Amino acid sequence: MHESSTLITAPTTPMIWHGWGDPTRRPGLSPRAEALLAQEIGPLDRHTPPVPLEEVRVGPSALSDDDRRALEAIVGPDRVLDDHLTRVRHAGGKSYPDLFRRRQGDAVAAPDAVVLPGSHEEVAAVLAVAAERGVAVVPFGGGTSVVGGVEPERGGFDSLIALDLARMDRLVTLDEESLLATFEPGIRGPEAEAELRRRGYSLGHFPQSYAYASIGGYVATRSAGQASTGHGRIDQLVHAVRVATPIGELSAGVSPATAAGPDLRQVVVGSEGLLGVITEATLRIHHAPEVEVYEAHAVRSFTEGAAILRELVQAGVAPDVCRLSDVDETRTFVQQTEGVKGTALRGYLSLRGYGEGCLLILGWDGSRASVALGRAAAARVLRGHETLRLGTRPGDAWAHGRFDGPYLRDELMDRGVMVETLETATTWSAIPRLYGAVRRALHDALGDRGTPPLVLCHISHVYPSGCSLYYTWIARQDQGDELAQWRAAKAAASEAILAAGGTITHHHAVGTDHRPYMTAEVGDVGVSLLRALKDAVDPTGILNPGKLVP
Amino acid sequence: MHESSTLITAPTTPMIWHGWGDPTRRPGLSPRAEALLAQEIGPLDRHTPPVPLEEVRVGPSALSDDDRRALEAIVGPDRVLDDHLTRVRHAGGKSYPDLFRRRQGDAVAAPDAVVLPGSHEEVAAVLAVAAERGVAVVPFGGGTSVVGGVEPERGGFDSLIALDLARMDRLVTLDEESLLATFEPGIRGPEAEAELRRRGYSLGHFPQSYAYASIGGYVATRSAGQASTGHGRIDQLVHAVRVATPIGELSAGVSPATAAGPDLRQVVVGSEGLLGVITEATLRIHHAPEVEVYEAHAVRSFTEGAAILRELVQAGVAPDVCRLSDVDETRTFVQQTEGVKGTALRGYLSLRGYGEGCLLILGWDGSRASVALGRAAAARVLRGHETLRLGTRPGDAWAHGRFDGPYLRDELMDRGVMVETLETATTWSAIPRLYGAVRRALHDALGDRGTPPLVLCHISHVYPSGCSLYYTWIARQDQGDELAQWRAAKAAASEAILAAGGTITHHHAVGTDHRPYMTAEVGDVGVSLLRALKDAVDPTGILNPGKLVP
Repeated sequence: MHESSTLITAPTTPMIWHGWGDPTRRPGLSPRAEALLAQEIGPLDRHTPPVPLEEVRVGPSALSDDDRRALEAIVGPDRVLDDHLTRVRHAGGKSYPDLFRRRQGDAVAAPDAVVLPGSHEEVAAVLAVAAERGVAVVPFGGGTSVVGGVEPERGGFDSLIALDLARMDRLVTLDEESLLATFEPGIRGPEAEAELRRRGYSLGHFPQSYAYASIGGYVATRSAGQASTGHGRIDQLVHAVRVATPIGELSAGVSPATAAGPDLRQVVVGSEGLLGVITEATLRIHHAPEVEVYEAHAVRSFTEGAAILRELVQAGVAPDVCRLSDVDETRTFVQQTEGVKGTALRGYLSLRGYGEGCLLILGWDGSRASVALGRAAAARVLRGHETLRLGTRPGDAWAHGRFDGPYLRDELMDRGVMVETLETATTWSAIPRLYGAVRRALHDALGDRGTPPLVLCHISHVYPSGCSLYYTWIARQDQGDELAQWRAAKAAASEAILAAGGTITHHHAVGTDHRPYMTAEVGDVGVSLLRALKDAVDPTGILNPGKLVP
Repeated sequence: MHESSTLITAPTTPMIWHGWGDPTRRPGLSPRAEALLAQEIGPLDRHTPPVPLEEVRVGPSALSDDDRRALEAIVGPDRVLDDHLTRVRHAGGKSYPDLFRRRQGDAVAAPDAVVLPGSHEEVAAVLAVAAERGVAVVPFGGGTSVVGGVEPERGGFDSLIALDLARMDRLVTLDEESLLATFEPGIRGPEAEAELRRRGYSLGHFPQSYAYASIGGYVATRSAGQASTGHGRIDQLVHAVRVATPIGELSAGVSPATAAGPDLRQVVVGSEGLLGVITEATLRIHHAPEVEVYEAHAVRSFTEGAAILRELVQAGVAPDVCRLSDVDETRTFVQQTEGVKGTALRGYLSLRGYGEGCLLILGWDGSRASVALGRAAAARVLRGHETLRLGTRPGDAWAHGRFDGPYLRDELMDRGVMVETLETATTWSAIPRLYGAVRRALHDALGDRGTPPLVLCHISHVYPSGCSLYYTWIARQDQGDELAQWRAAKAAASEAILAAGGTITHHHAVGTDHRPYMTAEVGDVGVSLLRALKDAVDPTGILNPGKLVP
């Protein structure tokens, strides 16, 4: 148990244009990791760096002078930007295909301009001008979408702007009695958390994109953080939202609960910029934790680990963080552990017969008393199962590296390797079938192309009725056919998910990548309802074309 | 602590047509209660019984022979009913104005026929016929709405049917691993609970209407039960819904959580029959409790009691049932307590200086171990506050009588007395203002008419960010002008709620009574979204006209 301190601080530099994160931080692949990967997917013998920035192609800006002047009149002339780097930075999000294209020098679809509003009123005025003049608008928070959520798709309009909310980054109000904090949408995860910690509170929402993702983005994409089992998904944390739409302001959420009809908050949450731009979000917060602790166990199998998580959550004593890696992910984690610690861990697991086991990480944060109570309650459940206690070190190692995955993806893309993730969820009774189906689909689809993948999976969010499954797949790129290779794997996995009764996305959202599967997800009538919502508030269809609604 | 057994069993007789509940059970007013009321609102010296059934006026059935035959072809000839009693029973719900009119013999608006479908397919076929032929349809579950939710408003159509779901009363599937139960909509509270208890499970959803309310009605009205602080409001318990709409079937909810766009489950929950008819609801269940325990405390003031509840819920240790009565409700409860127990209770409170105090009831149910843990955790919070422990008797008395309120309303209506309830909610920081504003509005509105009311209030649902307020008001009827008197009080209270930042309804839903306030609740853009949803699935507007959407 240690002071709550593993959180990264707010990045001071803009994200690197062709990959993830801080441009000055390039962690590199360890020799152990490289050897392991070579063994699993073949040699990492290629060198495939991104092109230099100046070679990245963007189209000429299609924004008319009139349109530009109308936008400048709202936000000021220096807040309508169309320099090369700004346009490249807004040419997409951080999905594998996004990055692959940008690294190859293709940002041809980049927005014609990036507009930086400073208030709800400015957002509303920009939307009015855009609707009147037929300019598509892509709301842009942290730009961390991994599903094409900020792709500059024009939807038939001649010009397109990205509406970058970075200037709207304040904590607006704090209601300490009701434990509610109202934020502007552009504030990023670490800055929002720091504003709260300074006053003794925490939001506790830590998706892997935390360093750069924005509060508005969390809400618009229905995100889930790593501690969401304890502190709630963003949809459970949203108390109220204020939204600028082309037909006026929508405020949803006046009380902790209501029976006044359908829940319009839950219509805004997950609306991905298609219904309007979130200009304020009021979120539930809690008292800042005194301590955080991560304990690790080895379990015999994924099935056994899942049974433990199910029992914990159904007994109402699930830890705040619950994470169970499957055999392949566990092996990858254990094999990568460097030095004496790694040797000791591998030896211990093997000696105790857990060489083919699964790693279970349980994490708590809160007051010393509540963490002690939570651990004791979980321990009572764990006593009914055979597990090998590994102490807090592997858990701390996970917590320490938990925001690093995207950096490693960049390294691997430099070495001719595809890395992609996807996530789904279903009921406990359907999990075994879903787990196997997606794994098989990825192995088959990529194996058939001669690029057999390493497929890793973990459970990271548990509910009384089921859990999520998060997959990472890694394979050598099919050189010259990289995007077709990605599409084949993505399609195979998506179809397997739907056939096995999973949701097409547990927390990455829909964007462009999952849009073809939305009809299967919600049915024809569901799609009609989504279209009706869209048409009601955005009759000209300027808002984020090509996303979410088929 | 005692075995979990205070639940009423399923009623075997249909509800009395002019009031609440089992026709054979008419508990009567105790002499103590009568004396207390006389002191508060004036003498109960009038005799105002309902008219005999045969004197109740219904209009001639406007359903054409063709329409009737089309409906009979779907459900069978003996399932399209238009006898006098059946039409009277479906002429409205159980709100004060509903009952007042019916008791006076006015059921003129009664449905032209009552149709009893037996399956999703039959419901879908009835909706198709109704849409084609222009017949309004009021979905009818338990018929317990207290906000005009099942008023037979024709919305411009020549004829109207009530679609009574009583035949669709099965537990369809039970997923014991995922703790999910799928019910047909017409099964009533006690029967659903009994189906689950028989197998070791519980839904734990106990609104005051429990004895007669249906599962479909819970979902359609976004209901909250008395133990919702512990077990969740129905919107938190809904895993999936199947809905028959005029344009086809909507299934929403495939996994415990998803990021696939707006949550269409939360669009169906609270849709009050305007978007379709819920034909299946999959709900989260839990293991049946071994024990239940209710402990009572006296606290010095409503403010102090609210602070205790806030601290409990924000610490994550709120009991399953949390109920705090204000001074007037506490006095009414204490004064009514009969016999030696009552004398002792009054003496004890007065002696210890709590004669003007407030009653706090905390209830737990679950396994012996979890209840013990929950009580211990709450005790730690309570130790930081001055309370007078009253043991379990007052709590048991409340639990024993908790479904009896509506019976007492009937008694009072027989004596020329108006009884009405309303509920709202807001954030903790706004509660003091809301609490006072609604009380004053009711006192002023009814006092000004020469019928000063007794106004009782309690908190019954607590959330980390706020709580509900539930008001009961009792006043002598303004003879000859009873409905205007009710409207004046209702309007005054509703306007006070909105001005003080409360929601217009916390768990009674919208129906006809709260519809005029929906624009204030969700704004013009919110209303546009609701209308768009409605128009998308019910283009001819046959479904439950005149409710919810202004």
